[in-house]
Amino acid sequence: MPNKFFLSKSKTWNRRQLLKWGLASAGTAGAAAVGLHLASRSHSAARVPPIPPSDPSDERGLQPMTVLRDFDYGTLKRENGRNIREFRITAQNTTIQLNRAVVFNTWNFNNRIPGPTLRAKQGDFIRVVFLNQGGHSHSMHFHGIHPTEEDGVRPIRHGAATVYEFEAKPYGIHLYHCHAEPVTRHIGKGLYGMFIIDPPQGRSPADEMVLVMGGFDVDEDKHNELYAFNGLPDYYHMHPIPVYQNQLIRLYLLNMIELDPAVTFHIHANFFKVYPTGMTLNPSHESDVITMGTAERHILEFAYPYTGKYMFHPHQDAIAEAGCMGYFDVISQA
Amino acid sequence: MPNKFFLSKSKTWNRRQLLKWGLASAGTAGAAAVGLHLASRSHSAARVPPIPPSDPSDERGLQPMTVLRDFDYGTLKRENGRNIREFRITAQNTTIQLNRAVVFNTWNFNNRIPGPTLRAKQGDFIRVVFLNQGGHSHSMHFHGIHPTEEDGVRPIRHGAATVYEFEAKPYGIHLYHCHAEPVTRHIGKGLYGMFIIDPPQGRSPADEMVLVMGGFDVDEDKHNELYAFNGLPDYYHMHPIPVYQNQLIRLYLLNMIELDPAVTFHIHANFFKVYPTGMTLNPSHESDVITMGTAERHILEFAYPYTGKYMFHPHQDAIAEAGCMGYFDVISQA
Amino acid sequence: MPNKFFLSKSKTWNRRQLLKWGLASAGTAGAAAVGLHLASRSHSAARVPPIPPSDPSDERGLQPMTVLRDFDYGTLKRENGRNIREFRITAQNTTIQLNRAVVFNTWNFNNRIPGPTLRAKQGDFIRVVFLNQGGHSHSMHFHGIHPTEEDGVRPIRHGAATVYEFEAKPYGIHLYHCHAEPVTRHIGKGLYGMFIIDPPQGRSPADEMVLVMGGFDVDEDKHNELYAFNGLPDYYHMHPIPVYQNQLIRLYLLNMIELDPAVTFHIHANFFKVYPTGMTLNPSHESDVITMGTAERHILEFAYPYTGKYMFHPHQDAIAEAGCMGYFDVISQA
Repeated sequence: MPNKFFLSKSKTWNRRQLLKWGLASAGTAGAAAVGLHLASRSHSAARVPPIPPSDPSDERGLQPMTVLRDFDYGTLKRENGRNIREFRITAQNTTIQLNRAVVFNTWNFNNRIPGPTLRAKQGDFIRVVFLNQGGHSHSMHFHGIHPTEEDGVRPIRHGAATVYEFEAKPYGIHLYHCHAEPVTRHIGKGLYGMFIIDPPQGRSPADEMVLVMGGFDVDEDKHNELYAFNGLPDYYHMHPIPVYQNQLIRLYLLNMIELDPAVTFHIHANFFKVYPTGMTLNPSHESDVITMGTAERHILEFAYPYTGKYMFHPHQDAIAEAGCMGYFDVISQA
Repeated sequence: MPNKFFLSKSKTWNRRQLLKWGLASAGTAGAAAVGLHLASRSHSAARVPPIPPSDPSDERGLQPMTVLRDFDYGTLKRENGRNIREFRITAQNTTIQLNRAVVFNTWNFNNRIPGPTLRAKQGDFIRVVFLNQGGHSHSMHFHGIHPTEEDGVRPIRHGAATVYEFEAKPYGIHLYHCHAEPVTRHIGKGLYGMFIIDPPQGRSPADEMVLVMGGFDVDEDKHNELYAFNGLPDYYHMHPIPVYQNQLIRLYLLNMIELDPAVTFHIHANFFKVYPTGMTLNPSHESDVITMGTAERHILEFAYPYTGKYMFHPHQDAIAEAGCMGYFDVISQA
Repeated sequence: MPNKFFLSKSKTWNRRQLLKWGLASAGTAGAAAVGLHLASRSHSAARVPPIPPSDPSDERGLQPMTVLRDFDYGTLKRENGRNIREFRITAQNTTIQLNRAVVFNTWNFNNRIPGPTLRAKQGDFIRVVFLNQGGHSHSMHFHGIHPTEEDGVRPIRHGAATVYEFEAKPYGIHLYHCHAEPVTRHIGKGLYGMFIIDPPQGRSPADEMVLVMGGFDVDEDKHNELYAFNGLPDYYHMHPIPVYQNQLIRLYLLNMIELDPAVTFHIHANFFKVYPTGMTLNPSHESDVITMGTAERHILEFAYPYTGKYMFHPHQDAIAEAGCMGYFDVISQA
């Protein structure tokens, strides 16, 4: 197992490194790092149970419980009278343990699957400093509005770096992924993450969390054998997600399963309001099952009126049974 | 073919049997069986053609024409000042004839595929007395809002029984199915049914009918070879469903096909209004094709302006050609 | 390569031919051919770049660049005080070159895949004179509202002809396809096209274009090996579609891929407004990914704020990589 799977956020790239990668012109070195993090208004007012300690017996190389509520607001800088939110992403190559039997060589961003959940406010100017240490050519393609030069379809070779810059618009729940060909394989290996743009007025207080569905073609036969929420098959099945009774949950849900045309997402014993692609402040409808093709994503809102453990999973049950299965553990706020 | 495939509804379980199954504490034995059935307001005002007599040459062991308009309102009881709607469901194991060549050993609820269409009004208190005579461990998991103890994921062993109790909420078109593992197999064998919760104010008069799409993995290769509406491949293809011209049809449609990620539903020569998951009184949009993942369901409303026979089927035509095909036979009301 | 792949629109069938096909009773021979074409209000006010000249090195037998903005308004006739819009369609059998290695024997309408984009206004009386020269029995089944005799499920034998007549209603983006069995195969071979019914008040000016997604089961193993927008794999990938910056694009999008349950459609660096089935004048939501089952279709509206080349493709990337991939080339209007 890798012993430094999560890079410390405080790791910084110095001017010497940026020069080496040819990025000094990005202006990052000369900028005053204000170092502010966007305060999450939602979090401050919502009641969120503490994340359970890691189970020492489940050392498979990823930390899904941390991924769940971990939002990367980047570093806020001020340059030439303009606010810039800067993120640093490294493509890497890491071996994880999908289950007791299966070791899988992932390609990933910042040693996570999914990559960091980047988060900004609509209108922020975004700078993503991307370093490829992944052993193959990779890129970062963002869903969003931006000029073609920032579209991230051009492969960056191993050892090289680039900078993507664009305005964060429009608000919604978006994504980024490697667009090097074949994209199916680069996504299947783990090169994807969520990109949340908050609306100017924010959203109501809630226990906000991220679930990204992924598939693993372990034997490279163009079919997925294992599936996961947030990287590890059956993790939340074995380690339920604690949430408070009657607390509004805002779930940022993304389907990144390649090779299967579509999956549903279902929660037990409850219904959710659907905000399609998170691009609206008003739900379009309610259900307890929603169909999502690859790269579709939605905000789902719900609250559990009763305590206890409740499953969530795709209702293509073969996919649930192959690892895409979890529990919410609803506990009293008292 | 089984000769008692449809249990009489009047069959009752006596106190001795309930005690044997350990259910006397459910209070059912001491309750006064009021025996009222909820009157279907919709049915009374809509014009519905009589169900055609069964074709004696099509004795495959299920009665899709009966299933179509058969709503089980349970038995209304009054206990301690509270109205209770009680349903009785038995998991069974029955062989049916999918077509001339293929015999299939189903697992089912009340000797039907789909199981009985349970129907209640929002706010009713529901009691489901479940007896497992199915030869394997089974359960009844309801989509809806309920405490974890009523979630029906705990398997009930053969010969045992249990009671599920919860409030019927919120209104919509929901479902129940066995949640014993592997769920894919238990659903594929036939253990599912529809659960309709009517809104307090009811819906407008209509010819209401139920269609549940299912798949059959006959050779257990994890692919479906045959498909059906309401249990029997091509039944409504060979035996069209009579409906009246210009009569509003309210179709309660549920996709329970496992192993295929999604199917569409299409009607010929017409368009339908869509009420997503039946959880709204206002349609979200109109179309003649809608995509549904496993466990998705919608209310569709339409009326035929012209007489004649019109196909309905998924537009993944390979699935239609493998049995998921039917006709409406639109006849004049004169 | 066929040298008359596109029939001239001015080709007319004379009375002798119609009599031979037994269609003289259709009244077409006696009608005064007014010869008016419905003016496209949308086109006149929107700025649309000229279609690039055909690349002489890409002679694969179809003209996707022409298909894109080619609307067939038929011939307007006046009979007995009624306006009739008449279309003439011939089923044919043509060999095309899917790529350098693969020759494919298509079955098609009017020597195109997709067939001609038929277009009318809500309330028009439609007459489709259909001649089958395709070598097999074929038919034309229209999505829309019509009597059963006009439903086009009855096969027309090779060498025979028929007439379909119905009112164009309701407005939306519909389709037609051969309904001879097995439908999966007849659609897979290329027998489909779009049928647009404009709302009475029209739509706002826009650069209107048609994209139809199709799949090719080259080795007849019930799986598609190649995919395409408008008939030829990777055509718009090799030959980007020119559009003007800041010009509203109205995309008429139809998924006719059989054998895959669903695909998504995704545009890079932008978002679209969705008009489900084109049956509304108000968009239901916005996204940059939408899931579509077979025969689903939507109007998508968007405009590019920046110049440059932007991909569009299903986000089931294996399908994109097998030919369902294109570029918009956004150019300045200056």
